[in-house]
Formats: sequence, structure tokens, C-alpha cells
Amino acid sequence: MSEAIEKATAAKVAAALLAQSSAAERTDAILGAAQSVSDGRDRILAANGADMQRARANGMPGPMLDRLMLDDARIDGIVSAMREVAGQPDPIGEVVGGRTLASGIRLTQVRVPLGVIGMIYEARPNVTADAICLTMRTGNAVVLRGGSAARESCKAIVEACRAGIAAAGLPQDAACLLESEGHEQTIELMHADGLVDLIIPRGGHSLIRTCVEQSSVPVIQTGEGNCHVYVHAAADPDMALRIIENAKVQRPGVCNAIETVLVDQSISLEFIPMLVKACASWGVTVHGDEHVTSVARHMGLAEGTQFSAATTADWATEYDALELAVRVVSGLDEAIDHINTYGTKHSECIVTNEVPAADAFLARVDAAAVYVNASTRFTDGGMFGLGAEIGISTQKLHARGPMGALALTTTKCLLRGEGQVRA
Amino acid sequence: MSEAIEKATAAKVAAALLAQSSAAERTDAILGAAQSVSDGRDRILAANGADMQRARANGMPGPMLDRLMLDDARIDGIVSAMREVAGQPDPIGEVVGGRTLASGIRLTQVRVPLGVIGMIYEARPNVTADAICLTMRTGNAVVLRGGSAARESCKAIVEACRAGIAAAGLPQDAACLLESEGHEQTIELMHADGLVDLIIPRGGHSLIRTCVEQSSVPVIQTGEGNCHVYVHAAADPDMALRIIENAKVQRPGVCNAIETVLVDQSISLEFIPMLVKACASWGVTVHGDEHVTSVARHMGLAEGTQFSAATTADWATEYDALELAVRVVSGLDEAIDHINTYGTKHSECIVTNEVPAADAFLARVDAAAVYVNASTRFTDGGMFGLGAEIGISTQKLHARGPMGALALTTTKCLLRGEGQVRA
Repeated sequence: MSEAIEKATAAKVAAALLAQSSAAERTDAILGAAQSVSDGRDRILAANGADMQRARANGMPGPMLDRLMLDDARIDGIVSAMREVAGQPDPIGEVVGGRTLASGIRLTQVRVPLGVIGMIYEARPNVTADAICLTMRTGNAVVLRGGSAARESCKAIVEACRAGIAAAGLPQDAACLLESEGHEQTIELMHADGLVDLIIPRGGHSLIRTCVEQSSVPVIQTGEGNCHVYVHAAADPDMALRIIENAKVQRPGVCNAIETVLVDQSISLEFIPMLVKACASWGVTVHGDEHVTSVARHMGLAEGTQFSAATTADWATEYDALELAVRVVSGLDEAIDHINTYGTKHSECIVTNEVPAADAFLARVDAAAVYVNASTRFTDGGMFGLGAEIGISTQKLHARGPMGALALTTTKCLLRGEGQVRA
Repeated sequence: MSEAIEKATAAKVAAALLAQSSAAERTDAILGAAQSVSDGRDRILAANGADMQRARANGMPGPMLDRLMLDDARIDGIVSAMREVAGQPDPIGEVVGGRTLASGIRLTQVRVPLGVIGMIYEARPNVTADAICLTMRTGNAVVLRGGSAARESCKAIVEACRAGIAAAGLPQDAACLLESEGHEQTIELMHADGLVDLIIPRGGHSLIRTCVEQSSVPVIQTGEGNCHVYVHAAADPDMALRIIENAKVQRPGVCNAIETVLVDQSISLEFIPMLVKACASWGVTVHGDEHVTSVARHMGLAEGTQFSAATTADWATEYDALELAVRVVSGLDEAIDHINTYGTKHSECIVTNEVPAADAFLARVDAAAVYVNASTRFTDGGMFGLGAEIGISTQKLHARGPMGALALTTTKCLLRGEGQVRA
């Protein structure tokens, strides 16, 4: 039996027990896991040191090294996030509907765990602890597959969590980690129908496409963010610049950051020079259409570093860096068309003081979160009041936008009769 | 461009218009389609006649011929089902949540259509009209792929519906039919990511597995039903027999019919002879374990026709016929294990007068609908009060059990600010 099938089977057995556990038991298990991570920090930091050393030797770039790195403060952050999840409301067992059927059968629809979640993610140790807590909060078991660059860190965190869960009296196989090298076990996990109920990939485009193309277990796509700000004819230009700066510069590597600004042609003469100048001051490289590049040339900016001519490929690119595509559009219709063609249905924004334009944008843009006059950076489980999130869904099925605890549940209909048969 | 991509693209354009249509316009379109089917019945019946002739020539078995056949009464049934959907409540635009974020941004979560649904089904003409109405009720467009044996009937029904929709002022590409021969276009449809939002296969095991294995568009599995009745130690034997008869004999070919009866060992001496005798009187062939076959032999039943020895394969078989697997189990735990191992998570039943056993069964059996003392045949959108159904989901994601209008929707978060940026 392969490691993936072996661990998915163990997780399924654990899931059956978890589904019968009480909210208080699951809270204790999360708190136990948090304490165990805190107490075991020396071992976790040593494991992370080994990962960091290997990553540096392999030439991992700085931003990725930063996401891999743990220190005492980051362990504290992980532990406090775990304790927060322990304090979140528990949705399991909630009665979400009910009726007495014509035959007299009483139907009650209750919220239940999904079962076993397969979580496939990149070299980010903190995702390991997040996933364990959120799945435990909702009575699910999890099979984790972290990026290989973080393998020692993930292993140390999972071991600590399993010890904490077991000490609280729940099955430690609630959290299983795939440890074999290579992609084979990941692929096995994606085909463990009947054992695994859901695969959540969390990472870049190619990881997500691999899961969507290959998995026979249902997948929720998360976190691809080709997001836009459309500066409408009736925009306040200063507000537009503030929103663009926040949505591009504050954390360029996250999925709710923007990649393209669309500027209404009727204000382009005024706004494009302001935007190009601002980008230069923020250290943002502009990939502009003809109009934008001619303005940049006129301003004497450096072609190749400060700006370049955009191609169609730019409209579809998630830079995740201090780069921004800029395009002039003829109006609202073209802006909405552009977004619905190139966007990833994550977060989209219009800046305007005109209510009908705002309403049309809200109605016609097809995305999880559509904004008027606010930064796309607000799309986040915490900001939306969902507590911790397991990812941001960019698909329409089951969960859309930030996924909190409810996204890890399903329902079951319980029907109580006295011998009824169908006529 | 292939037919599948061409039609999915047309459907996507139609879906964008439908999403902006009013509930009244969609009601008119459904009523228009219904009238058009009624008025066009001569052409539909002629097309169906051609399908029937070809099917008979190809040796199609009787029950399948019956599902393919249309007559005046069945057209009336289709038209009245369409008009019923026109009268169902419209869920689009419903506000399902909202809050003011800490930053003052006002968040409203509204119900919106999914977009484009791909519906892949067998040679059942009525499913064509059902799917068009339910997708129109919920503001979605549909690309239909019916079984080739029904191709003329489906084409005539779709043409009638498109004319009715267009006459009501909505885009006729709300309903598109794939007409090319062979599987190629079906496979294309399953890979039309970005155009098609959901694939719903409705049919047998192999159709569903093909979609689950091959589709990169999300799939909802429907209608596989390996359902059980467990006759508990504290069952009323007469009630158990009534429920088994109803769940097996009334309509053996449907997904909420049962395939296996589990009998508690403590009442097997009394109950197995009753059950075996009853099955013989119902014309049901029993596939029994050792205990059951020895009883059947003792009663002088005909081996091979009235009963046979079951193998493990029987526990996993959906007979869809007057055949029933029967197994003695040691008690509640073994019954639940058997069901959670071999069941398809559709509908499961315990017959018992003991409340703790009933509660344990309800809590621990992993299925869309779990019954105490009632026939599994009640699992149905109409019976559950959902109106018409597009299928019965046997997966846990997005929709579980009978899928009515809500299952064809998603939500969108609208956020209105005054220039807020994230700190």
C-alpha cells in the first residue's frame, strides 16, 4: 500500500471518530496542539534551520526564503493563530433546515464534517498548523502535503500537533503528513476517491492546474489573483491613486494584490501621467499600452526598467511583484469585458463617484468580491469576519471567496418515520 | 473551433445577459418554452418516432425503450413540469449575508447564477426540458449532451425551447445542444474551463466515472444509489418487510431503491425465512450469504433463479432490477461499517424501535439521507420540498442529496467603500 493510501485510510478512520466528538473535545485538541507546538519550539526551529540551510544551498530566492523561515516570534504567531481557531464558533451539528414531509416523516438537515481533506501547499510551515486547526475545528481529518523545501519544518510541526491531539484524547491520525519524496504520493492522494473528500491546493498557478487537471477527488481552486482596479470617468483621482498604491505596493506577493489598472479614456489625459509618475516613485515597473508608454517616454522614464510596452500576455499575468499592467479602456463596458476575460474571479475594484456605474460594475463583474472605492486587499477571511481562513476560493462551486470553517462542512438529511412507504 | 467550444462560448455570452435579467423575464421564458413544446408536439413526436425506430433496430432493451418513448400524455407531463418550475420561487438576487467591516466598508453577499452548466445525460428526452427550465429559473445557460439514441427527440425539444425563450426576449443560446456524433465533443466540454462552470452527469456508473476522472471543469456526481435497509435487533418485522418491499419492488431501476438488506444476527432465525419467502412472492432474486442461502435451500427455492450465493461483488452492485443482496451482520457496528464501506452515500435506512440504535445509525452513517423506519424511496427533490430537481448529489461538496434551484447558484460579495485602504 502506498504512503498516500495508507495515510488517507488512517485519516478516514480518525475522521469517523472526529465526526462523533464534541465541540469541547475538539477545542481541547486544538489548544493541546498549540501548547505542544509552543513547548516543542526548539525542535521545530532546529528542523527549520536544516530546511533553511538546504534552501540557501539550493539558491532559493529571498522572498521564498522569508516565507520558509521560522523564529521565536513566528512560532508565537502560529501558536496564537491556533488558539484563535480554538475560540471560533463550532458549526458542527447545527440544524440548518427541517420540515415534516407530507407523509409525516420528520426531516432534519444538520451540518456535518466533510471527512478527510487533502491539503497540498508550498514551502510555508505556518500553513501546516493553520490547516490542522481549521480541519480539527470542523471535525475533519487532514492529509498534508507541504512543499519539499519545508519538509523538516512541516514534519516537526505535525509531530507536535499529533502529540497535542492525542494528549487531548482524540486520534492523532486527524493530522497525517505525506513524507515520501517526489510527486507520486501527491498524485495518489488526488485519486484516493472514497478516502479523501476534498483536495485544497494552495499555491501558484501550476500547482493548482495540476490538481484541477489530474485529481478525481473534488478540488477547490484557491488563491489565483489576477485582480484589477478600473479608474472610471467619474473617479476621484487621488482616491484612485491611494487605492492603487495600497493594492499593488503594500504586499505585492499576495493574491488580493492587483496586477492591472484600467483607465477610462475620458480621464486618461489627466490620470495616466499622475499614475505613471506615482509608479516611478513607488518603484513599480509599468507595462503599458501605447498611450501609457508614450506618456512614460515623454516623461523621460527608463524603458525596460521603469516601463515597457505591454503585450496581450501582460493582461493575463499575475506578477506577484512590483510590476503593474496599465491599459486605457473606452468605458465601463470595455473595462468589464477586460476583467471578465482576463481576471481570475478573485477581487475586482471600480473607483467612481457615479452610482449607476458602480451598480453596473457590481452586477456584471464575475468575481468572488467586487469593490467600489476600496482596496482589493480587504478580501480575507479575517477581514470578512470568518475567522481564520483555509484559502480564498476562486471557483464558484461549494465556496466562493475567503473560506472559513463553514467551507469545510457539508450537510446530511436525517429522516425519522413510523414505517412510511412511498405510494 | 470545435462544436463544444463554439456552443459553450455562445452559452457564456447568453449567461452574462441572463444574469442581468429579471425573475419575471425568466418566468416568461420558461412559460414560453413550455408553450412552444406543447405547440410543437407533432414535430417532437415525429422526431421521437425516428429515435424509437432506430433504437428498436439496434435492439435496445424494453426498459430503456420505455424511457426513450414519448407520446401525447408524456409531452403533457413535460409541459406541466416546465410550468411548475416557472412557478417556483426565484433565488437570484437574494441577500444571504452582510456586515459592515471594521474599516467601514459595507459588505453584501448576494445569490447569483453559476453561469454555464454542462449537462451530460442518457437517452431520456424529458431530462432535456427539465434541465432547460431549472437552469433558466436560476439565470444560468446550459449546454446539453443527451444520449445519442435520443438525439432527434432532444434536438426537437431544444429547438422548441429556444424558440420559446427567444419569443420571450431572452437569448436562445441559454439552451445549446451538442449534436456531433461520438465522444469527442463531450470530452471537449469537460475541459472547457473558463467557459463552463459546472458539469452535471446524470446516468449510470461509467458515465459518472468518466466525468469524474476526465473533467477539469468541476463535476457534481449524481444518482449512484447502492442503498441499504438494516433490520435491527429491535425492528418490527412486518414494518421491515413493508419498507423493504417498497424500497426494492416499487421502482427497482431508480437510484433511491435499495440493493442490499442487512439483518441483525439476533433476529435472523425469525426474520430471514420471512424475508426469503417474501422475496420469492415478489419475484425478487436473493443473493444471500451462507445463512440466507441455507434457509433458501431448506425452503426448496430454485438455486440460480430464486436465490444464489452472494460474493463480495454483490455488496458493491447496484442491480437496478428485482434482485436483492441479503447479509447477516453481528450488530449495529457491523451494519454501519458495511454501509460506509459499500454504500454510495445516497440513502440508507435502519428499521428499529430502539432510540439509541436509531440515533447511532443517524449519526454514524455517512450518506446524503439517513432514514429511521421509512422507505429510502422518499429521497427526491419533490418529496423534500425543493420543487423540481436536477439530480441527486452523492458527493459532499456544494450540494448533497436532491438538488433543486439553490444548487445551481453561487454567491458574490459586493463591497462598497469611500476610499478605504488596508493598514
